Amino acid sequence: MSSEPDLHLARPDAHAPGMPLVTVIGDGQLARMMQQSGIELGLTVRLLAGSGAASAAQATADVWLGEYTDEDVVRAVSAGADAVTFDHEHVPNAFLEGLIADGVNVQPQPSALINAQDKLVMRKKMREIGAPVPPFAEILSVADAEGFWDATAGAVCLKARRGGYDGKGVWFPSSRSETAELVAELLDRDVPLMAEKKVTLVRELSAMVARTPSGEIASWPVVESVQADGICYLAVAPAPAATGGQAHAVAKAHTLARDVAEELGVTGVLAVELFETVDEAGEPEIIVNELAMRPHNTGHWTQDGCVTSQFEQHLRAVLDRPLGSTALTSTTTVMANVLGDADADPEQAMSARMDEVWRRFPTAKIHLYGKDWRPRRKIGHVNMSLPCGAAATDENVAALRRDAQLASDYLVTATWKDQ
Amino acid sequence: MSSEPDLHLARPDAHAPGMPLVTVIGDGQLARMMQQSGIELGLTVRLLAGSGAASAAQATADVWLGEYTDEDVVRAVSAGADAVTFDHEHVPNAFLEGLIADGVNVQPQPSALINAQDKLVMRKKMREIGAPVPPFAEILSVADAEGFWDATAGAVCLKARRGGYDGKGVWFPSSRSETAELVAELLDRDVPLMAEKKVTLVRELSAMVARTPSGEIASWPVVESVQADGICYLAVAPAPAATGGQAHAVAKAHTLARDVAEELGVTGVLAVELFETVDEAGEPEIIVNELAMRPHNTGHWTQDGCVTSQFEQHLRAVLDRPLGSTALTSTTTVMANVLGDADADPEQAMSARMDEVWRRFPTAKIHLYGKDWRPRRKIGHVNMSLPCGAAATDENVAALRRDAQLASDYLVTATWKDQ
Ligand SMILES: Nc1ncnc2c1ncn2[C@@H]1O[C@H](COP(=O)(O)OP(=O)(O)O)[C@@H](O)[C@H]1O
Ligand SMILES: Nc1ncnc2c1ncn2[C@@H]1O[C@H](COP(=O)(O)OP(=O)(O)O)[C@@H](O)[C@H]1O
Ligand SMILES: [Mg+2]
Ligand SMILES: [Mg+2]
Repeated sequence: MSSEPDLHLARPDAHAPGMPLVTVIGDGQLARMMQQSGIELGLTVRLLAGSGAASAAQATADVWLGEYTDEDVVRAVSAGADAVTFDHEHVPNAFLEGLIADGVNVQPQPSALINAQDKLVMRKKMREIGAPVPPFAEILSVADAEGFWDATAGAVCLKARRGGYDGKGVWFPSSRSETAELVAELLDRDVPLMAEKKVTLVRELSAMVARTPSGEIASWPVVESVQADGICYLAVAPAPAATGGQAHAVAKAHTLARDVAEELGVTGVLAVELFETVDEAGEPEIIVNELAMRPHNTGHWTQDGCVTSQFEQHLRAVLDRPLGSTALTSTTTVMANVLGDADADPEQAMSARMDEVWRRFPTAKIHLYGKDWRPRRKIGHVNMSLPCGAAATDENVAALRRDAQLASDYLVTATWKDQ
Repeated sequence: MSSEPDLHLARPDAHAPGMPLVTVIGDGQLARMMQQSGIELGLTVRLLAGSGAASAAQATADVWLGEYTDEDVVRAVSAGADAVTFDHEHVPNAFLEGLIADGVNVQPQPSALINAQDKLVMRKKMREIGAPVPPFAEILSVADAEGFWDATAGAVCLKARRGGYDGKGVWFPSSRSETAELVAELLDRDVPLMAEKKVTLVRELSAMVARTPSGEIASWPVVESVQADGICYLAVAPAPAATGGQAHAVAKAHTLARDVAEELGVTGVLAVELFETVDEAGEPEIIVNELAMRPHNTGHWTQDGCVTSQFEQHLRAVLDRPLGSTALTSTTTVMANVLGDADADPEQAMSARMDEVWRRFPTAKIHLYGKDWRPRRKIGHVNMSLPCGAAATDENVAALRRDAQLASDYLVTATWKDQ
């Protein structure tokens, strides 16, 4: 079946002549924030969006409407672009191979991208390049799962290989029989599965770099990603290190992200999500959890805490242009996600909530995505940085974390959690 | 004659439900950069643009096409907006009075705006509120001009009362007879004129504040605006003060901008362009030159050197929302304008020039406006800040000025001026 994108919102007039054109497939907040950087750089972001009301489509002049699951649509929106990139991992790799065969500049390439799409493929690759991963196995049958339960003495983390996000697609069954039932049910629904050892987390880290097709790499400081129920709600940049052992683990994470980018040939922004745990000797140790090959939630702090944001860097990287400085503009920046309240959106309007936050915290940088409330949906984030010249003491960082959390809680609930 | 805007680019779907809608009249780089901030804040900027290819229209989803000189068009695009604001001073005040009579929230209001539109009205107002201005006079005849020549012993600066920018509309006649001829010719062309005493400039300063309709004021540090041929090419923030006398003059400028905003009832961003000169005792003294009631070229540094940029602050101010912190994120930021070369655009493409600049200066923040080259046209700017923690020593600031200037010169000429 052949189909064409709907071009009624397309704006070829919106291209500054002679400047690069980047097609972004995906219409979420990541594409929206790439567009902010594109405006600054004078280049054009052409968007493939599902709707003109989508987060990124609200912010973009040149919007093509269509489905990224439709090969003809993907081909049409990619034609003539200096680079094609993504705000999610769900475009079928076969389409991307087809584009590349036609001479389109797709970044990152599917050969790298597969490691951000398939959790099992990624773990095999990590093992191959010597990056630390927990014991894992493919799960093709209930017997596989039972075997894994026995081998790990019940420390089982079961994962859908593909398509999970925000903890959807991750399970921690509490008994051998629960594992068997869950796996039977999932296999029945044709969910490809893997299992890995459930590790005892000290905390989660994220190490981010950008890499160009020519091989230039720039890395940001490693970030602490504070999670609850499988969703990141706070990122602290740089990740505090309380002990020499922790500093060592953070430094290892920093190097590891560069190595992964090189070994996998990643282009654009790469986020390596990591677990910090303790080894048998009680020393901090890091383990790779997941890769993302696009701007990542744990990199939003770069918009207000760093010379070059991850969104600008991603555009520069996929166009194979020189990368920007990743120097900090503040000794610590905290990002707090604004996640839709579990029950209901408060009566007070969002803009009144913002005003309340600004009144209390004039340094709060509020970023909204133009999205409606839904329970636990990411609808924005707040960045707060230490003032110019202030040192990242434990006390200063703790106060900053508290304030950023209060601000985002207010945006979610219309109440001050400390009052 | 009744006319309607052309709505074929309008995008009502691009509004996040429940969030404010700001209509911006004008399609230049100031509106473009407001739009960047609008995206971040989740609000909608609806643009009245002359063309879909205009600087701001490239960056905006909801573009209405039409002329701001057409009252029906202005009325239509303003309907339903939470605030109506501008990226230039040229919308006829009669239209704005009409909008206000209809209940539209126009910010700033024409009663304030007139002081940014008419250089004579402004000077009279400054005298009234006790703000320092040079001796000046309305020029209605050649005899007026000759009289002014005699009274100032030939130190004459002649100005068109309205419509001037970048030094167009400012003359320094060198003799009594040249003054007479010039004035005769200009009056013949119906250019309303004023004259003021030509002062000996030590340097130019710019003091910027934002004010809300409720009266909240936030001010940025005073900036040194380095000019040549009537165009600002460099802004240094904060303005260095070499002596106690200069520090005193800068402090006076800072206070003055707040006073002007209050006395005139300015809303949104106000830039007070000032001359620093020396009084009879040889002490630094400041004199008001011009007012702008919108984001201003000498405030572009705030995008990369300050917690809250002038573009975000303007949107917050015209919506009567709490203002953001104006704390610095670096001890000094230098902004260098990218002005089209006088002769021709270099052969090297602009994006290749950017790459060259980034290779040499990874901290250079390049902002482009999506505008074609024209001689002396403002097509972008470069911001460079001292690294986090670096002190604003003379040496550091001099190096920063040199680097920002080299970067912008390269973007203009495709050559390194120091090589
Ligand atoms: N092996 C594991 N051991 C312990 N906790 C885990 C493990 N794997 C995942 N988790 C927890 O679940 C969260 C979501 O898992 P992840 O694989 O990152 O899924 P998603 O794709 O939804 O982000 C992680 O951030 C972590 O908190
Ligand atoms: N009275 C004056 N004495 C000396 N120089 C002046 C005087 N007025 C203007 N200038 C110079 O001319 C420039 C442009 O004048 P200005 O009134 O600001 O016009 P514009 O509206 O074009 O910005 C100023 O920035 C300054 O360099
Ligand atoms: Mg994850
Ligand atoms: Mg001026």
